[in-house]
Amino acid sequence: MLTELVRKLRAFLPPDAVLYEAEDVKPYECDGLSAYRQTPMIVVLPQTEEEIIEILQLCHSTKTPVVARGAGTGLSGGALPHHQGVLLSLARLKNVLEIDPVTRTARVQPGVRNLAISEAVASYGLYYAPDPSSQIACTIGGNVAENSGGVHCLKYGLTVHNILKLRVLTIDGQVIEMGSDALDSPGYDLLALMTGSEGMLGIVTEVTVKLTPKPDKAQLVMAAFDDVQKAADAVANVISAGIIPAGMEMMDKITIHAVEDFIHAGYDLDAAAILLCEADGMTEEVAEEIQKISTIMRESGAVKISISQNEADRLRFWAGRKAAFPAAGRVSPDYYCMDGTIPRKHLARVLRGIETLSVEYGLRCMNVFHAGDGNLHPLILYDANQPGELEKTEAFGARILEMCIEAGGTITGEHGVGIEKLDQMCLQFKPAERDLFHAIKAAFDPDGLLNPGKAIPTLHRCAELGGMHVHRGETKFATIPRF
Amino acid sequence: MLTELVRKLRAFLPPDAVLYEAEDVKPYECDGLSAYRQTPMIVVLPQTEEEIIEILQLCHSTKTPVVARGAGTGLSGGALPHHQGVLLSLARLKNVLEIDPVTRTARVQPGVRNLAISEAVASYGLYYAPDPSSQIACTIGGNVAENSGGVHCLKYGLTVHNILKLRVLTIDGQVIEMGSDALDSPGYDLLALMTGSEGMLGIVTEVTVKLTPKPDKAQLVMAAFDDVQKAADAVANVISAGIIPAGMEMMDKITIHAVEDFIHAGYDLDAAAILLCEADGMTEEVAEEIQKISTIMRESGAVKISISQNEADRLRFWAGRKAAFPAAGRVSPDYYCMDGTIPRKHLARVLRGIETLSVEYGLRCMNVFHAGDGNLHPLILYDANQPGELEKTEAFGARILEMCIEAGGTITGEHGVGIEKLDQMCLQFKPAERDLFHAIKAAFDPDGLLNPGKAIPTLHRCAELGGMHVHRGETKFATIPRF
Repeated sequence: MLTELVRKLRAFLPPDAVLYEAEDVKPYECDGLSAYRQTPMIVVLPQTEEEIIEILQLCHSTKTPVVARGAGTGLSGGALPHHQGVLLSLARLKNVLEIDPVTRTARVQPGVRNLAISEAVASYGLYYAPDPSSQIACTIGGNVAENSGGVHCLKYGLTVHNILKLRVLTIDGQVIEMGSDALDSPGYDLLALMTGSEGMLGIVTEVTVKLTPKPDKAQLVMAAFDDVQKAADAVANVISAGIIPAGMEMMDKITIHAVEDFIHAGYDLDAAAILLCEADGMTEEVAEEIQKISTIMRESGAVKISISQNEADRLRFWAGRKAAFPAAGRVSPDYYCMDGTIPRKHLARVLRGIETLSVEYGLRCMNVFHAGDGNLHPLILYDANQPGELEKTEAFGARILEMCIEAGGTITGEHGVGIEKLDQMCLQFKPAERDLFHAIKAAFDPDGLLNPGKAIPTLHRCAELGGMHVHRGETKFATIPRF
Repeated sequence: MLTELVRKLRAFLPPDAVLYEAEDVKPYECDGLSAYRQTPMIVVLPQTEEEIIEILQLCHSTKTPVVARGAGTGLSGGALPHHQGVLLSLARLKNVLEIDPVTRTARVQPGVRNLAISEAVASYGLYYAPDPSSQIACTIGGNVAENSGGVHCLKYGLTVHNILKLRVLTIDGQVIEMGSDALDSPGYDLLALMTGSEGMLGIVTEVTVKLTPKPDKAQLVMAAFDDVQKAADAVANVISAGIIPAGMEMMDKITIHAVEDFIHAGYDLDAAAILLCEADGMTEEVAEEIQKISTIMRESGAVKISISQNEADRLRFWAGRKAAFPAAGRVSPDYYCMDGTIPRKHLARVLRGIETLSVEYGLRCMNVFHAGDGNLHPLILYDANQPGELEKTEAFGARILEMCIEAGGTITGEHGVGIEKLDQMCLQFKPAERDLFHAIKAAFDPDGLLNPGKAIPTLHRCAELGGMHVHRGETKFATIPRF
């Protein structure tokens, strides 16, 4: 089967675009979540939409699974290859096709890096707003697949709010356009349905993104608190005052120390929590907003407030936050990044719950996250060389996600479900809801060839998990704080 | 069949909640688009979700079509009854179930009026942002069905951007929750898919809406132009300067005259076009934005600029715009409101195209619309008592929509497809795209019982229309300006 498929692929793809030797396919065995590994049968690296159409038609007719891949920076295993499948890399489709500064849009291929869009349009005073931490490396195609967010999505929205149109290939190679260059599109909202569908409904070949004017000014308030509860209250108070900051991030004590040792951002080492709250826009507007934010921070009990006085200050304050993941890597052999969302009002309670679990599992956990969105990113610190620690870490992580669901939140803010959170999907959704997901999947891909086994758990898997939970009986969430 | 169904419905509904006599069902024969009329077999007026579940289970088991209806203010015939079906009025589900001023959300039943939400939360300094012209009467359930917009959706988004969660019943009476109280939801984006699906996928029984803080201040610039092109350029110039006004509306000469005779808003009767451009937010921010907008208007060639000096001024300027539809009713026996969107940069060209068509059809057309969104609302003036004028009007309207498609736009901005624009859907979408719509519909409603015949044209209908267009051959769009 392998040699036959390779022969057919080589009929229309150059030799360097079809990889199948073990050492050639090895680099594709995982995405950013390296806990799961699987080599694909074949890797293809097409350069044009026509080539992708031929690849899909071939895979469709031979019933071969197809897993799309951007830069492989995903954190939930969404791009994990299928061992009997074709890994479809979109890395070579990296052209910016059109920039329209008047309508403030750009049409780009899926392999264009997130930051490369902003670089390409910088001369017009524009940028692409969603800014995942991996924005130097991650591609817009991957951003669409995972509906990526970032520090600034509190004000500027997720990927779905920043794209206008998608050109998509179905599994049988037909071209579909979703969305439009205008405000709204009739018919069912395929654009939103496709965004965040983790490569299971179609292959994106073009993305029309909205561009945002660079603000005249950006300024940052850094507020230190002696109590996590007060910091969480400050977040709620800023939002309920009607302010929508450009970003509002929280770091806890363990994060502050890990980062400060490393970056020297000037964070207060005595603080129990630090909030970074940015305002951007027109100069007068920023001044007024920073004033209001500072007042609210003080009234909420901040023990120290610093306001960036220039761009160097601002970047230094951010540098610490942005280095939190590498800092975790410095203080622990391994770390495991979770991604759950909760209604903002439950921030303090869920953070206390994580602390309780941390003691229970005997594992440290750094909390650094998009507080304004209620999007948590607990980093569980562990040592993979200690037998059983990975398993303990995964169990701890799963409990955090279950706690998010109990608080009325969800099991992912921006990293996707992938294979990592399949079990939690069984908890998040009722059978009737999962049935609907399967029916929608079948509407696009009746043979289940696109990224099989990801994002939407099979009924069988949930039934097995349900059995496990029934076995635990009434004590299922006994040690998790209830809301 | 009728008496059998009535008997079964009366088993669990009170007598006044099951209507079937001709005089009782007559008031439900059309929505705001009165050109199409059809009485339903039965009207039901449930008061609880449990009752709706029973109604749906009964209709599902007897294969009876179900058409949901809010306030009946829709403008595309989306709520037109089925002659062999049950019209499901949601008017009695009108409770505000929960208001949470901290998370700034409200959970309401589908029959709650749009404006009633804002009234219910006014004491917290909050409001519900989307403001369709019919907001006094229209319900949130209908807003979800049509993904309604309004004057302020340029800045605050459409319905889909202002809701967090839906509780939905499937045709077989199962409860599905879509979205969540948190930022993002895993799995396919059912919330967006449901919004704007015109009652074809499920019945909404609860809507959790986002609430927006009332701005400290709102101020309006009224700019008069002696040339429509200059006004259109001013729209583009404001947007490309990075300003997102709270609203940006345009009126042409015929609208200005119709309105000014009626409302005395102080509009310049010599103007070829008037722009109303509003800024809202914090006081300093509004001052700066109004300053910038005025400068851009002047540089774009405005012959007269007025800035509202107080709230009375501002409301008077808006009063004219808001009275445009009734004003059309004063200057013409009948009018037909279209709703198309185009990329903003094509505004002037499409307006010229409409003028050309107006001459060709010998019918006047008022243009009053959401210029900032590129969302046109041409009002074709006609007299239904003149034989043939309605048909001519419909043909004129269809040509306008085709012109929107040619300009890269869409056939609806906020009024939906309903039955009015089924033919244009055949032009807007390729067969592969329409196939996908049908497959999604079947995933939710395999028997096609929910609002049959709306929004998504059958393949047969498009094939017939295709035949008609083939008959016209190469001259299909010959008289429409090409882009």
